[in-house]
Amino acid sequence: MSDAQAAKVRAAILGFGTVGSSVARILCDSKPAGVELTHIFNRNVARKRVDWVSQSVIWTEAIEDVLSAPVDVVLELAGGLDPAGDWVRRALEAGKSVVTANKKLIAEHGIALDKLARSKGCHLFYGAAVAGGVPVIPGLQQGLAGDRITRIEGILNGTCNFILSKMEDGADFAQILKETQALGYAEADPTEDVAGFDARAKLVILLRIALRADVAVSDVAAKSITEIAAIDFAYAREMGCTIRQISRAELRGDEVLATVGPMLVPQDSPLAWSRGTENMLLVGGAYGGDVVFSGHGAGGHPTAVAVISDLLAIAHGSCAIGLPSKKVGVSGDFLLRHYIRLVVKDRPGIIAQIAGALAEQEINIHAILQKPGHTKESLPFVVIVEPCPSSALRRALARIATFDYLLEPTLDLQILEPEAGL
Amino acid sequence: MSDAQAAKVRAAILGFGTVGSSVARILCDSKPAGVELTHIFNRNVARKRVDWVSQSVIWTEAIEDVLSAPVDVVLELAGGLDPAGDWVRRALEAGKSVVTANKKLIAEHGIALDKLARSKGCHLFYGAAVAGGVPVIPGLQQGLAGDRITRIEGILNGTCNFILSKMEDGADFAQILKETQALGYAEADPTEDVAGFDARAKLVILLRIALRADVAVSDVAAKSITEIAAIDFAYAREMGCTIRQISRAELRGDEVLATVGPMLVPQDSPLAWSRGTENMLLVGGAYGGDVVFSGHGAGGHPTAVAVISDLLAIAHGSCAIGLPSKKVGVSGDFLLRHYIRLVVKDRPGIIAQIAGALAEQEINIHAILQKPGHTKESLPFVVIVEPCPSSALRRALARIATFDYLLEPTLDLQILEPEAGL
Ligand SMILES: NC(=O)c1ccc[n+]([C@@H]2O[C@H](COP(=O)([O-])OP(=O)(O)OC[C@H]3O[C@@H](n4cnc5c(N)ncnc54)[C@H](OP(=O)(O)O)[C@@H]3O)[C@@H](O)[C@H]2O)c1
Ligand SMILES: NC(=O)c1ccc[n+]([C@@H]2O[C@H](COP(=O)([O-])OP(=O)(O)OC[C@H]3O[C@@H](n4cnc5c(N)ncnc54)[C@H](OP(=O)(O)O)[C@@H]3O)[C@@H](O)[C@H]2O)c1
Repeated sequence: MSDAQAAKVRAAILGFGTVGSSVARILCDSKPAGVELTHIFNRNVARKRVDWVSQSVIWTEAIEDVLSAPVDVVLELAGGLDPAGDWVRRALEAGKSVVTANKKLIAEHGIALDKLARSKGCHLFYGAAVAGGVPVIPGLQQGLAGDRITRIEGILNGTCNFILSKMEDGADFAQILKETQALGYAEADPTEDVAGFDARAKLVILLRIALRADVAVSDVAAKSITEIAAIDFAYAREMGCTIRQISRAELRGDEVLATVGPMLVPQDSPLAWSRGTENMLLVGGAYGGDVVFSGHGAGGHPTAVAVISDLLAIAHGSCAIGLPSKKVGVSGDFLLRHYIRLVVKDRPGIIAQIAGALAEQEINIHAILQKPGHTKESLPFVVIVEPCPSSALRRALARIATFDYLLEPTLDLQILEPEAGL
Repeated sequence: MSDAQAAKVRAAILGFGTVGSSVARILCDSKPAGVELTHIFNRNVARKRVDWVSQSVIWTEAIEDVLSAPVDVVLELAGGLDPAGDWVRRALEAGKSVVTANKKLIAEHGIALDKLARSKGCHLFYGAAVAGGVPVIPGLQQGLAGDRITRIEGILNGTCNFILSKMEDGADFAQILKETQALGYAEADPTEDVAGFDARAKLVILLRIALRADVAVSDVAAKSITEIAAIDFAYAREMGCTIRQISRAELRGDEVLATVGPMLVPQDSPLAWSRGTENMLLVGGAYGGDVVFSGHGAGGHPTAVAVISDLLAIAHGSCAIGLPSKKVGVSGDFLLRHYIRLVVKDRPGIIAQIAGALAEQEINIHAILQKPGHTKESLPFVVIVEPCPSSALRRALARIATFDYLLEPTLDLQILEPEAGL
């Protein structure tokens, strides 16, 4: 520790994009003791050069220049599985510690990379991979290691939260998505965000750290927010709720329940308060009760704070407390109330038939809501069902999908708290 | 690191009270890998014995039994400056690491104890000293080390928050204080809590960790919540606010502004949402923006989670990132709007005279509020003044205190956000 503090830790940035350039900027501005930026790597690096970094920094487009140099810590900020995964592996093999913001890589290969790091006596930190500038990972790993976490529930994708909270205020999905892209929040291809894949990768990392459960990314169901319409916010409001993209998981016996998607959230839940690109995580512990973290989950500077914090942890001789996780089965079979929105060409007997399809799966109807102002030609209405296994509901909905008066695919959303007001 | 992981870390509990017994209980229930409870020390230990701890644990009332044993980590959970400070010093001198929940000790002597720990190559962790089960200290030390924190604002005393949020719902101070004591939240002597001394000790610790500012505890002004009455909640509500005990600090040039006391908080601020014994901390960073932490700040089990998390950090070879702090001057001179509640025997000319006393100090009146339903014999009313230095206001209030129509000492509260609705 004292050695590490005396000598400066040499750090290299891989990927000089949004996060990479923020990391360089903050390192140059705040000059934290004990670390020195030595390399910046990027393809076609010439167009990336800026004049505000120290003259001594080596700009390169050859990864070998970094991997063969006496660099102590590699900051992987390029993203994606390939070739970033390869660089991380080779850095660790060479005994260099790695700090990364790459949730995709850590969700897919974190356990193997962690093992590799330990076998080489070096560190792998990824505090920026979940919730960017909100210190969720150090909070869980260091601060809540003494608890037994049984439940996590969060808003882990700022883009979806921005879109949904704007829709809550009346914006249209397509229009607000465009705006989000113009503001630089969403990628040109927004699928990762809106389909829930980005949030799912983060949830899988949290499952490992908080619930100590190893889960394959593809085993967690993710539902897109694209089917949410203005009418759903209107119905949600009537129920004292709003709609958010929620990532949630809980332990049930030897299994883990986990899912990502748009859900109805009671307006008085902290999750409903989070607006704009804010991220929020609610952690339920067996001993400590509920803890909430919130703040800016994305953006160059907040994410860079997490990267630099990890770099400083390494420079100060700290290490991540890696409590062992174990492989478990995943199910999406939460026992919750559901919001089911159907759009039909109205005629007598529809309710009876739908109620029949639900009854076949032993699902009880809690309420039927129908807002005025629609024609019989295209009539949206909502069925709220009492808590039921998602799997039974899926079977009922498959049956309902065969009814010929349905004009649109049926939307089915979990209602986050059974006690949500109606 | 790997050595520490292989051999079990031997831990001793000093003080088998609320927190100490929770720590023992969780260690016995969850049996975390890598740690072993070897001693429990308490005065008159016979009456403390329980049958659910391992037979191998040594119960003792002689501190030497612990200090001379091959114990690796001492968990100091007795509290107070004396003799706990002495035990901590002697444990560190003997090369034992220390985990403590003792905010008083860390606020007063943390810097010296930290230095001693480093000089002996051992660790001093105190994650439980602030906000109990909410991982504020690891979040700041590990997760936000890369930011430059400029502002902290929080609810750090669960007892005061419980009392004030019950008063918001209509309870009377004296009655609710009794209830709080019966529930075990408040001590028999509640002065530490209600006068703000407990919160102040925590604020001083956060000043050191977050703002890297060394401040003497007695240099921070603390105001009691005892003068808050039902009428103040009524006026606050009219202003779109409520009242909470707030601990806050911010950097201003080379100085630090810091204070603890009841304040008006806008109802739409996260600080107003915190009810019951909940703690909450809002941290403002130059790069990462605002981050909020909340959860159970006190109670045996939540506090024990923080203690055990620190113990596990030591067992896993982690260390606290102790970024250097420096001695700075403290001022309470926030530039904020104030709520001033006066109770007078009414007669003509009072407003003119009070306005005059304020004008002498160049303080502008923003509004005067007077709720109906009071007699001229004892008339409460409220003056809201525009943002002004607390010191100028103090001078004006000293002058006002000499006016003979005042029936009660004047109550003066900061209004937390300048933009608070009126
Ligand atoms: N942005 C955020 O708010 C945020 C938040 C949390 C985590 N993250 C994570 O942080 C990482 C970086 O995100 P970002 O937003 O900074 O992305 P970005 O702006 O696209 O930056 C990535 C940089 O890496 C370079 N790069 C990519 N592939 C490369 C390759 N094969 N060879 C050489 N250079 C390559 C890119 O160069 P070109 O310019 O040539 O493409 C670009 O400069 C990702 O893992 C992301 O998931 C981002
Ligand atoms: N309770 C909370 O929610 C909470 C939250 C955060 C931090 N803390 C901190 O945690 C520490 C312990 O709090 P607590 O609530 O657990 O207090 P507590 O219930 O009063 O327990 C203190 C224990 O230490 C023993 N003790 C005190 N002085 C002693 C002495 N001179 N010699 C031997 N034994 C002694 C007491 O024995 P007796 O029974 O003989 O008095 C008692 O068993 C304090 O520093 C407190 O500030 C508490």
